[in-house]
Amino acid sequence: MMGNCQACCNRPKNTNIRISLPAICFVWQISMIILFGVFVRYDEESDSHWVEYMHKNNITSHVENDFYYRYPSFQDVHVMIFVGFGFLMTFLKRYSFSGVGFNFLIAAFGIQWALLMQGWFHSLDPTDGTIKIGIENIINADFCVAGCLIAFGACLGKVSPVQLMVMTLFGVTLFAVEEYIILNIIHAKDAGGSMTIHTFGGYFGLVISWVLYRPNLHQSKRLQGSHYHSDVFAMIGTLFLWMFWPSFNSAIANHGDGQHRAVINTYLALASSVVTAIAISSLSHRRGKLDMVHVQNATLAGGVAMGTAAEFMIMPYGSLIVGFCCGILSTFGYLVLTPFLEKHMKIQDTCGIHNLHAMPGLLGGVIGAITAATASKSVYGHEGLVNTFNFVDEFANRSVGTQGAHQAAGLCVALIFALGGGALVGGILKLPLWGDPEDCNCFDDEVYWELPEDEESIPAIIEYNNQMDSKRFDMVESNTLTVST
Amino acid sequence: MMGNCQACCNRPKNTNIRISLPAICFVWQISMIILFGVFVRYDEESDSHWVEYMHKNNITSHVENDFYYRYPSFQDVHVMIFVGFGFLMTFLKRYSFSGVGFNFLIAAFGIQWALLMQGWFHSLDPTDGTIKIGIENIINADFCVAGCLIAFGACLGKVSPVQLMVMTLFGVTLFAVEEYIILNIIHAKDAGGSMTIHTFGGYFGLVISWVLYRPNLHQSKRLQGSHYHSDVFAMIGTLFLWMFWPSFNSAIANHGDGQHRAVINTYLALASSVVTAIAISSLSHRRGKLDMVHVQNATLAGGVAMGTAAEFMIMPYGSLIVGFCCGILSTFGYLVLTPFLEKHMKIQDTCGIHNLHAMPGLLGGVIGAITAATASKSVYGHEGLVNTFNFVDEFANRSVGTQGAHQAAGLCVALIFALGGGALVGGILKLPLWGDPEDCNCFDDEVYWELPEDEESIPAIIEYNNQMDSKRFDMVESNTLTVST
Amino acid sequence: MMGNCQACCNRPKNTNIRISLPAICFVWQISMIILFGVFVRYDEESDSHWVEYMHKNNITSHVENDFYYRYPSFQDVHVMIFVGFGFLMTFLKRYSFSGVGFNFLIAAFGIQWALLMQGWFHSLDPTDGTIKIGIENIINADFCVAGCLIAFGACLGKVSPVQLMVMTLFGVTLFAVEEYIILNIIHAKDAGGSMTIHTFGGYFGLVISWVLYRPNLHQSKRLQGSHYHSDVFAMIGTLFLWMFWPSFNSAIANHGDGQHRAVINTYLALASSVVTAIAISSLSHRRGKLDMVHVQNATLAGGVAMGTAAEFMIMPYGSLIVGFCCGILSTFGYLVLTPFLEKHMKIQDTCGIHNLHAMPGLLGGVIGAITAATASKSVYGHEGLVNTFNFVDEFANRSVGTQGAHQAAGLCVALIFALGGGALVGGILKLPLWGDPEDCNCFDDEVYWELPEDEESIPAIIEYNNQMDSKRFDMVESNTLTVST
Repeated sequence: MMGNCQACCNRPKNTNIRISLPAICFVWQISMIILFGVFVRYDEESDSHWVEYMHKNNITSHVENDFYYRYPSFQDVHVMIFVGFGFLMTFLKRYSFSGVGFNFLIAAFGIQWALLMQGWFHSLDPTDGTIKIGIENIINADFCVAGCLIAFGACLGKVSPVQLMVMTLFGVTLFAVEEYIILNIIHAKDAGGSMTIHTFGGYFGLVISWVLYRPNLHQSKRLQGSHYHSDVFAMIGTLFLWMFWPSFNSAIANHGDGQHRAVINTYLALASSVVTAIAISSLSHRRGKLDMVHVQNATLAGGVAMGTAAEFMIMPYGSLIVGFCCGILSTFGYLVLTPFLEKHMKIQDTCGIHNLHAMPGLLGGVIGAITAATASKSVYGHEGLVNTFNFVDEFANRSVGTQGAHQAAGLCVALIFALGGGALVGGILKLPLWGDPEDCNCFDDEVYWELPEDEESIPAIIEYNNQMDSKRFDMVESNTLTVST
Repeated sequence: MMGNCQACCNRPKNTNIRISLPAICFVWQISMIILFGVFVRYDEESDSHWVEYMHKNNITSHVENDFYYRYPSFQDVHVMIFVGFGFLMTFLKRYSFSGVGFNFLIAAFGIQWALLMQGWFHSLDPTDGTIKIGIENIINADFCVAGCLIAFGACLGKVSPVQLMVMTLFGVTLFAVEEYIILNIIHAKDAGGSMTIHTFGGYFGLVISWVLYRPNLHQSKRLQGSHYHSDVFAMIGTLFLWMFWPSFNSAIANHGDGQHRAVINTYLALASSVVTAIAISSLSHRRGKLDMVHVQNATLAGGVAMGTAAEFMIMPYGSLIVGFCCGILSTFGYLVLTPFLEKHMKIQDTCGIHNLHAMPGLLGGVIGAITAATASKSVYGHEGLVNTFNFVDEFANRSVGTQGAHQAAGLCVALIFALGGGALVGGILKLPLWGDPEDCNCFDDEVYWELPEDEESIPAIIEYNNQMDSKRFDMVESNTLTVST
Repeated sequence: MMGNCQACCNRPKNTNIRISLPAICFVWQISMIILFGVFVRYDEESDSHWVEYMHKNNITSHVENDFYYRYPSFQDVHVMIFVGFGFLMTFLKRYSFSGVGFNFLIAAFGIQWALLMQGWFHSLDPTDGTIKIGIENIINADFCVAGCLIAFGACLGKVSPVQLMVMTLFGVTLFAVEEYIILNIIHAKDAGGSMTIHTFGGYFGLVISWVLYRPNLHQSKRLQGSHYHSDVFAMIGTLFLWMFWPSFNSAIANHGDGQHRAVINTYLALASSVVTAIAISSLSHRRGKLDMVHVQNATLAGGVAMGTAAEFMIMPYGSLIVGFCCGILSTFGYLVLTPFLEKHMKIQDTCGIHNLHAMPGLLGGVIGAITAATASKSVYGHEGLVNTFNFVDEFANRSVGTQGAHQAAGLCVALIFALGGGALVGGILKLPLWGDPEDCNCFDDEVYWELPEDEESIPAIIEYNNQMDSKRFDMVESNTLTVST
């Protein structure tokens, strides 16, 4: 592996993670067990006292257990996190193992830490100081991890798994605090996480990538592209994200019309952004040829931008407009902004998360604020308005205008946490401790994975041919020599 | 790209779609937005007035929202449309991008147009002239698009994305009219769409393929086959179609026993057709070797043929018999009919949709008619018979015999629309406007996609070897020459 | 195909399955139809008399149909069986067709036979001697087949599809008996099947593999490895198994808190085993590099080990501990036990099912016994305890200690059936009738599949080069000769 580096690296970095990765895994996993032991218990719907709870609360059917309202959506979200994000990152020709494998590792660790962090803020039972978990908590844990996986997209190919574990630890922590401020203190609505997940995750990752800027990344240029089949693998990720996004945006929406409407709105926005993303992709090529990068990514932008407004009465045509704009915007991002950011802002954004998450997330926050501010009783009905924006208790007298302003404030909080948190975490990841690869060795699975032997087949054939060639030249030469005597 | 055509094409076709594809995408997407703005609203179960609606109708639980009855099935159907159909069409060695990508584009456009077309026929609210959409509408939109994706299968590799958009526009329109006649006027039952989706979509595509017959398609023979890995990709499509077909056939069936029974029947028919498809595949080879084409396609025929009868009391053994016959029939289709159709009827059916959709769909319609005609109160129970066949209002006095005849009439309508519509749409697609590829350039992603560079690796090596060879021959020759002087 | 065997095989085996495979498929499928005709009917929830049943039993909503409690989990389990197990077995470089294709065949046959076998034991209606099937039966049929697919993993690459059909017939039969004894007679709880599915399936497969020991399997060494892309395909299987395992363990758990808790426990155990499996994988390599085999398999061990205890009040930290231990244990299994078993016990375990299923299954049985024995009213509540362990009717007075002992007894029954059944079935499969491949032809799709031509591309290039080389040598030689005259 070090062979190809001789030319470019004076002091080759040590990518041996035999101590650091197991150490961090064990320490954190054991910590999880201890903290879960102290803090985490089943909630009343997943505890075996549920039958008694039903009697007490006059619940006549098991189907009223929140499990049955949310479980199908949970499984869809789970697929998005592990197959969706995981396979979306297999597009590089020799980084598929890392794309799907590291995604697996950090998501599996992150959901545990998220259950704790989010639990302390949202599900702490004041009577006994424990966190009570149920189906909604595990959905939220998946959501929280999504923020970190987005950030992973910006760093793809340039960081070690140890760095990713550190990034996830801090990312989840920041996310939980930010989310608590936005949802509970500011009381903004954000069922699908345009602000809390996509804006935060996107800018968090971009700032980390900016701090970790690699001036000589061009030395890995040979590997920074896709292979025909790796692009097809990535489409698995794209499609599972695209198909299940309605579940993502509706998973923790209100029962009944809330979940129902969130699904319809997201479905429409996504459909619309596919059509415009492909239109712009074709328009940008000399002969109208499509680019897989756009199809894999920009088609999803509509779902991101509906994250906040999905449960609102944005109307079916409103959803189509959101998708329309995002498909265009996101594809332009890939064409114009990603090269610009790399050249002029020193942000190397491997997966283009700026175009898929950060920018549409921002837009989604703005759309949410506008939609909230323009909500009216005539459209929502009195009860509908109260339910949708949860105008109860201390927020009972909040006007829709005020709600709009608070939505905007929530967006700012997400941005501030992303920028500040990204700088902090980027600084930590810059420490020369974590086994990250050389500039000339990025985007290469070989650094962290045992690869199958014949994977090398094509280079091997070329090598073989070269050897045969030199032998033949020798023969011919010797032959000539013989003759010339 | 044009390089390989020099020999065969005097006036090379223009496959530049830089203007046409973006133009058609934008015009149609903007039309969708305007039409949705005028026509489409949430229905009472997805509108924020749902809580008031619950009060008014004494609904005590959110779980009675149709959303909770149908959402899990919807997501499964969604997976079938985008991953199932998409990946099933990745089997060609160099057409995987187009298979999955064009499927994505036309399905995303088609579902929007289907919501409108089907809405006008089925969900128009007479009080305000708007279409009220909910979960059942988006399932039906997915169903409608399935018809067009089936037709795409016959044309795979031979048409441009512009043609596919045109085909989808007309296909969805025809589908909605045909479906309205079959389900509402004739009052035939067809929950899983053996008639409306598979028979219509299948013959519609076959007629288009017949109109677009390419006499020199053999010039693309080198690309009209699979690659080891592209066959494995196609199995992703096959399996997701196969696994989720019970959801497809039950998604819009009656609540309760209707959905339940449709799942069981489809599950059994599919299991049975796997076993017989593989048996015939083995039997047809000199040494009993299996053919991936059969495993990818004929195994699904049982699900197609259960589309009409799935909710009926066809009995578990009845479902097994249906699957048994279809597995055999469909595999024979691939072995005998596809070559026959190509040779003698000038129908080039790339994916063999005749064997997977058209023929089993026809059979499914017939099975539905027979099962309906032989239904009895002793088997169904009085209420069961009324519920299953929806013998209410003006149809309250319809006998099962009459219902059987009407099922058969529905099948004829599907056929007539398919043949007539296919001829019309085929004629339109034949116009030399749409940027379709040359006969010698079919089945090639390179025409419409920017491909990753190293995708060419293997040809490149051969090329490289050839160059080296000629150099060596030169050397040897010059060597000889030197000697001979 | 026989070409490469000339050196090693004196009497080449006959792998022609043109008669045997179709024969076995047809005979068994026709038997299924006849037996279903005699025995299988819809149960009251899938029969069209459901509406009358609702009236009789004062059920007011269709949502109380068990279908709505279990259907989402069923579809997830279905994905695990066909895509999960199927793609997990595509990891070999030239055995992907067989891995996913044979899995498809035997699962499709097996679920039919399982409906009958399990039906006779569990769902026989004494009034008319028929089996009444509903959603729970088809979930159980999928579960039953899982046991056979695990056994397939041990034999992968070394058996013919005919042998697999025979193995499935006997495996399902043995499973149904064993399951009846464990669940009904011993009254042990095993919702996710640690004992009935994983322990049984694992040891059953290992004993078969031991009986079918191939001393010269090293002659197929060239094919017993993965390819870069086949490893990525296998990750599809891994992830769908991992993501949907919560559905697997909860699919037939009690309504309400039972299903809810099973999901949470399995989710946590799986997350934990990912982290420790990767830690040990890294620790075991000189430079800390990860091994795909561990990521593909050992990460799932936590789900296996939670199969029995998932519905118990094992507590969230308890689940994490289970996953923690299993991730370590399973990875050690791959590093140490698999080579040991092959070398010293003559067990060739292609997929390492001992580490993924057998050992964690055993552990899961033990954990279940301990958790049951230590259950208490203070933790479960009185009703909770009765519900969870189903202490009703003749088991109303059973103590938790007794239950623990019965759980342990259930584990022994699973082991006994696995060892005895494996020896019996192994013996049958050893008969020289079934068309299994030579030792030098294992792990090769070419034996049973028609392969795409260009699949040979890389070997073909090498071949081509060799030919060119020999020509050149000829030329050079003749050249020399000419000169020397």
